[in-house]
Amino acid sequence: MTVLAYGAPAADQPLSRMEITRRRPGPHDVRIEILYCGICHSDLHQVRSEWAGTHYPCVPGHEIVGRVAAVGEHVRSHKPGDLVGVGCIVDSCRRCADCDEGLENYCDGMVGTYNGPTADAPGHTLGGYSQAVVVHERYVLKITHPENQLAAVAPLLCAGITTYSPLRHWGAGPGKKVGVVGIGGLGHMGVKLAHAMGAHVVAFTTSESKRADALALGADEVVVSRNPDEMAAHGKSFDFILNTVAAPHDLDAFLALLKRDGTMALVGAPATPHPSPNVFNLIMRRRSLAGSMIGGIPETQEMLDFCAKHGIVADIEMIRADQIEPAYERMLKGDVKYRFVMDIATMGN
Amino acid sequence: MTVLAYGAPAADQPLSRMEITRRRPGPHDVRIEILYCGICHSDLHQVRSEWAGTHYPCVPGHEIVGRVAAVGEHVRSHKPGDLVGVGCIVDSCRRCADCDEGLENYCDGMVGTYNGPTADAPGHTLGGYSQAVVVHERYVLKITHPENQLAAVAPLLCAGITTYSPLRHWGAGPGKKVGVVGIGGLGHMGVKLAHAMGAHVVAFTTSESKRADALALGADEVVVSRNPDEMAAHGKSFDFILNTVAAPHDLDAFLALLKRDGTMALVGAPATPHPSPNVFNLIMRRRSLAGSMIGGIPETQEMLDFCAKHGIVADIEMIRADQIEPAYERMLKGDVKYRFVMDIATMGN
Repeated sequence: MTVLAYGAPAADQPLSRMEITRRRPGPHDVRIEILYCGICHSDLHQVRSEWAGTHYPCVPGHEIVGRVAAVGEHVRSHKPGDLVGVGCIVDSCRRCADCDEGLENYCDGMVGTYNGPTADAPGHTLGGYSQAVVVHERYVLKITHPENQLAAVAPLLCAGITTYSPLRHWGAGPGKKVGVVGIGGLGHMGVKLAHAMGAHVVAFTTSESKRADALALGADEVVVSRNPDEMAAHGKSFDFILNTVAAPHDLDAFLALLKRDGTMALVGAPATPHPSPNVFNLIMRRRSLAGSMIGGIPETQEMLDFCAKHGIVADIEMIRADQIEPAYERMLKGDVKYRFVMDIATMGN
Repeated sequence: MTVLAYGAPAADQPLSRMEITRRRPGPHDVRIEILYCGICHSDLHQVRSEWAGTHYPCVPGHEIVGRVAAVGEHVRSHKPGDLVGVGCIVDSCRRCADCDEGLENYCDGMVGTYNGPTADAPGHTLGGYSQAVVVHERYVLKITHPENQLAAVAPLLCAGITTYSPLRHWGAGPGKKVGVVGIGGLGHMGVKLAHAMGAHVVAFTTSESKRADALALGADEVVVSRNPDEMAAHGKSFDFILNTVAAPHDLDAFLALLKRDGTMALVGAPATPHPSPNVFNLIMRRRSLAGSMIGGIPETQEMLDFCAKHGIVADIEMIRADQIEPAYERMLKGDVKYRFVMDIATMGN
């Protein structure tokens, strides 16, 4: 089945409209007519081959929301007409300990929503900048938000779960002081989610101009991390810090703010290494520097339900499909509050 | 009260015999006639002012075992004649959350056994390379090992607790695969303790020559970390890795061996930074890089009791007090299996 998509024919070519093929739904497959797709920084890295191993044509997009158009004969969990989502994962081995625990995101056989291995043409998965996608039911999430919020739900499928999972794993909640470093696509979700979980939330930004915005997102306090006095006032006080900044930066400045047994989890990976963290900073208070990657399928459903219950969506700016390249350029400059979402209905125009 | 000690008058002078003064025991103090003192790598760093802030004269030594000579009027927990130990801590604030939880090692007011602040002359604490020490009863540990093992018990007070505490904290025990990196003063204790806790223990060494020794210490397997094939065979398999190596080295090689949610804890701090760890290595399996420093007083007692029950002591080489400088030189070359212990009885000769 042929549908329209936006993708890059090669690393040095801009995204353009193209036709791609989606497989006929198998017994456990769900065919989704895509309505909106969020624009993640990873999309840009991958489509421009800034990470190793991009296959072309490359159709990015792993923050997918849409409506079920058809289901395979054995599918019981979804039916035509349902609002559903697909995040970063469209397949996994389904046999390992990670899959058994619902942590498909850590499965060695995890198949990304784009650029992952597949038997379908052209041999690698094609993402959500397209009119439709066919996905095994296990990896399809139910959306219970009001339909008029659907576009703003899309970024929950990556930015939402990538921040929700570590916040939950490291116990963000009432009585806990939680920092969120970086107020962008990921960080703005981190602030909203940590606030809704009941934690005392401190947002860290390098930009004085984001102070009011961070408070509006739900931060209890905002620290401009370039100001040493503001930083020092929070020394040894955090239970957990979620660090969303992918650019290389001084981790020690934040590790020093953790109390004993505190953890800072990184969810962004820099292209060049961070300055090496000071080991004394870890040893002196039994602190941990950790990482976390997306989240598993059951936890993604839990996150969507949590967000629906608490009225949480992303703050978005809608773009037309043919505005993707300028949107990338603005994203590179941090000029978006806080996530672009592509209106897939504009693709056929 | 004047006693003999071995210490350095200045950073650029060798250790020599000197007289020092110990305070008259207060109501809660214990006066200990020191029998043996272990030689820790920290002693050498501190006495040579390789870390900032060494005060002189400097008398090192924080692996102290001896016999109670006298106790203050309110002391109930120890009595003259008892065999006791003193580790790295001789005081703390006794009011903070860390002290309340028995984690005096993480108290901001923790006073080290040497080079710490004190009202006693000369204004900084003097350690265990001496004939006697006076310590508040809270920081004095009971020793229940047979008396003929006493010299080999001394290193438990630092090398023992420094490895015991993280092994316990991160759950070493039956069903867990635990790595110990570096088979020296700390590492040889780590192998013995992890084995006694019931973990499957893999010792990592850079030296083929230590293979048989590590097995004899209790390792189930030994990996020569310079051999990439041996390392790769253990990929993603460890629950916990205790890294005792203070020299800068490639942390990624070991982080890659942790399974999902695994932790590598560093107990040594290098003089110059390790190469910056790869963030992907943390993110891809939700791994943690942590640190741990010594252990609290209740846990030190627990460790001593555990070792007595399991017949665990350090492997030591006894030296005379006047052999301390050559012992340091051999320690720098790793030429000791695995800890030097000073026979304090030789000090008066």
